[in-house]
Amino acid sequence: MTVTPVHPAEATTGPEIELRSRITVELVDHAASDIGVVRAARVSTAGERAHREERGDDYIGGLIRYLMRSRHGSPFEHNYMTFLVNAPIFTIRHMMRHRTWSFNEESARYKDLESVFYVPDSDRLLKQEGKPGHYQYVPGTEEDHELVTTSASTAYRAAFREYQRMLDAGIARELARTVLPVATYSTVYATCNARSLMHFLSLRTNRADATYVSHPQREVEIVAEQMESEFARLMPLTHAAYESYGRVSP
Amino acid sequence: MTVTPVHPAEATTGPEIELRSRITVELVDHAASDIGVVRAARVSTAGERAHREERGDDYIGGLIRYLMRSRHGSPFEHNYMTFLVNAPIFTIRHMMRHRTWSFNEESARYKDLESVFYVPDSDRLLKQEGKPGHYQYVPGTEEDHELVTTSASTAYRAAFREYQRMLDAGIARELARTVLPVATYSTVYATCNARSLMHFLSLRTNRADATYVSHPQREVEIVAEQMESEFARLMPLTHAAYESYGRVSP
Amino acid sequence: MTVTPVHPAEATTGPEIELRSRITVELVDHAASDIGVVRAARVSTAGERAHREERGDDYIGGLIRYLMRSRHGSPFEHNYMTFLVNAPIFTIRHMMRHRTWSFNEESARYKDLESVFYVPDSDRLLKQEGKPGHYQYVPGTEEDHELVTTSASTAYRAAFREYQRMLDAGIARELARTVLPVATYSTVYATCNARSLMHFLSLRTNRADATYVSHPQREVEIVAEQMESEFARLMPLTHAAYESYGRVSP
Amino acid sequence: MTVTPVHPAEATTGPEIELRSRITVELVDHAASDIGVVRAARVSTAGERAHREERGDDYIGGLIRYLMRSRHGSPFEHNYMTFLVNAPIFTIRHMMRHRTWSFNEESARYKDLESVFYVPDSDRLLKQEGKPGHYQYVPGTEEDHELVTTSASTAYRAAFREYQRMLDAGIARELARTVLPVATYSTVYATCNARSLMHFLSLRTNRADATYVSHPQREVEIVAEQMESEFARLMPLTHAAYESYGRVSP
Repeated sequence: MTVTPVHPAEATTGPEIELRSRITVELVDHAASDIGVVRAARVSTAGERAHREERGDDYIGGLIRYLMRSRHGSPFEHNYMTFLVNAPIFTIRHMMRHRTWSFNEESARYKDLESVFYVPDSDRLLKQEGKPGHYQYVPGTEEDHELVTTSASTAYRAAFREYQRMLDAGIARELARTVLPVATYSTVYATCNARSLMHFLSLRTNRADATYVSHPQREVEIVAEQMESEFARLMPLTHAAYESYGRVSP
Repeated sequence: MTVTPVHPAEATTGPEIELRSRITVELVDHAASDIGVVRAARVSTAGERAHREERGDDYIGGLIRYLMRSRHGSPFEHNYMTFLVNAPIFTIRHMMRHRTWSFNEESARYKDLESVFYVPDSDRLLKQEGKPGHYQYVPGTEEDHELVTTSASTAYRAAFREYQRMLDAGIARELARTVLPVATYSTVYATCNARSLMHFLSLRTNRADATYVSHPQREVEIVAEQMESEFARLMPLTHAAYESYGRVSP
Repeated sequence: MTVTPVHPAEATTGPEIELRSRITVELVDHAASDIGVVRAARVSTAGERAHREERGDDYIGGLIRYLMRSRHGSPFEHNYMTFLVNAPIFTIRHMMRHRTWSFNEESARYKDLESVFYVPDSDRLLKQEGKPGHYQYVPGTEEDHELVTTSASTAYRAAFREYQRMLDAGIARELARTVLPVATYSTVYATCNARSLMHFLSLRTNRADATYVSHPQREVEIVAEQMESEFARLMPLTHAAYESYGRVSP
Repeated sequence: MTVTPVHPAEATTGPEIELRSRITVELVDHAASDIGVVRAARVSTAGERAHREERGDDYIGGLIRYLMRSRHGSPFEHNYMTFLVNAPIFTIRHMMRHRTWSFNEESARYKDLESVFYVPDSDRLLKQEGKPGHYQYVPGTEEDHELVTTSASTAYRAAFREYQRMLDAGIARELARTVLPVATYSTVYATCNARSLMHFLSLRTNRADATYVSHPQREVEIVAEQMESEFARLMPLTHAAYESYGRVSP
């Protein structure tokens, strides 16, 4: 550990950066429906005729509830949702722990990154209490919010200034980007099926009524909530059954 | 090894069975296109704008060829094809070795199976020559075909007769079915994306011009060929690139 | 559906076959321990020092129970068990639905299969009652057991006779084997980690005290029970926690 | 885009940070051997006797070369290596794209991170030429190295100062850490089998003699090289065959 050289700080000027709190999820493609679950499940007992099944909501809902309760998961895999997510890197890292998903992400090796960085908005609980594994998050004061915003922008601006300085000197993008914070916004294509989405939702939402309560970071929960509302719209009976049975992925 | 009791044979009568050579694949659902590959790939360099890309076939084909040649596989995962396959059990077993697919199959525990069994048709090469790992398959004589058909129907009929006898006596389906041959037809829902399909095609088709020549059993190749023609129709530029670069899955 | 030709039956003679009820599982290789779970988990909070942790059973058991209860599954993946399983094909098919396992199986394309076939032993419940999804299995009479054994040996003998007849005539193994029953014994190398094993056990054992009661076929449960006793021996604290928290894979 | 508030810079003092170029990989557990590949492969043709096979290196090497050349990959899965990797976050992100691996990582939500950050050493090529997908990396001048070191330490120090400021004010770790750069060192437990390792090596090393030349970032290649030397030591005949056949994962 040594004293390291630094560039002279330009505290009040410097690169323009955008502080952003919004995390967005857009459904860009899909083929997903409740009847599709029924058709896949019915191949067990109806064989070749299964995929021509036309059934009313009572039948569909009943079979789906049975599958969910009994944790017969495979019929929920024959469908598809692709989301475009714009979120800070630390949130995308949480998403990418899920290995049954497909991902393509914006590359800091192949393009210049934009100066857009995450800061928590005024609703975000800023402080933690309790022990690891049992944290409680509680609101910060107005001063806490100011501190976070100021600290963040100070660090982001220094980072982006040095990033640009290196790019200007012809340093490779893949090295210049190493100074950028994990709060830097990135964009990712993310594809899953209903079963892998339910698994993701179980781990990445905090719901007191869940059979297994999870404690995700709030930012990835914001991603999960937006995905969940698309899922509930496309597959309402599947989503209702998922809710009824404790949000345990089948 | 002991002499085991047998039921008296009823050689010339017995259960009606169907001998079938046809193996069918039907595309029942999908969301798959060449432009989808481009959009997923372009997120690397275009970020959020990627999914609104509209491009001509020249651009699409060029980018897809680049991805295929360089084995950048992930952009080929954001799509979806569901097939309904009717094939003998030994062929479905070959399919189910592929672990990135989703499957739901007709259940011999929950339904009575029908008396439909596979026999090779007159084009099927019947004989093997050479060592394991280097088999050559060559045509059989007319007598060979007769032998196979007669042997098959003898065994299938005995099996189905005993299956029915056990069901009639109230034996559980899951036990009665154990006598049925691996030639028994079954039905499966099978879902994959273009990347996992190309991997499947690489292993389950025999093409002399492939970079890595594979030696699948002919029956699963019949499944693969039908899937390949749907794939080529839905994603013609991806399929053309796959062909151009030696049928190696990216 | 037509009357099909059959070979004249030779009811009382014919090929020697072995009827077998025993299903065996042997642990052939492994690297699995409770302390390994702790080390992997502790990387979260101890970083580089995690893998040198030495802890007593109280600490290990406590942390493992916490991970199990909270469904933190990934620390249970850094270990390895390889089993050699000898079981009928229909049971191996149940095993091969599990896509996070690795498998290599005896090949009916590359070797002649032996005449060993499954029959239920005298303890096996033979009859089913109730509706699909809610079957109850109940004992058969002595006559039922005789019927099953006789039906099975009749079908197996006919199948093996025709299999041999085709091999003798030079028909390719991959075609001759199509007449063999799903009760034919096969051998498989099967590798998993503790997390994927717990998922397998949850689905492939029937335990009234499980949070999610499953209804596997008895034969694959026999495989699962043998694997479970090896697992309990190698990772006793992990197994105890799995039992305590309702046999839900974390 | 607005002018954002910043904390007054303390350019020459501030937190002590460590600049590190070393990326380390330690093999912490394993069960991997060439004979294990042979045993798994031989189950195809030797059935139950396969796992007792004792063979000389000629036989082992010959069979492994055959499997590699023919891309029979599954026999390479029945083994296991766990590595402890200490590397910057941007490198760990490259590792975590590999979905057949198991990972546990140091958590910035549950522990305070240390002030250790990556800088390229004097051998690292600093500059890129050419188009995306076809970059060439070339050496930087001594001034370039100085620039990178100074820019990096400026940004890292600003980031770590703000990180500490937020922690001191009681801000939650998961929020304070958002200012830290992707160059921050992290530690990960990473487990794979030989097949998934070969796939990783194919994509994460740059070898002119590979059938499919890949262009990974140098830092993840340093991880890959260290893993490769452990792999070559544990499974010398497998590694030799991998090299002989163009470093294409089977």
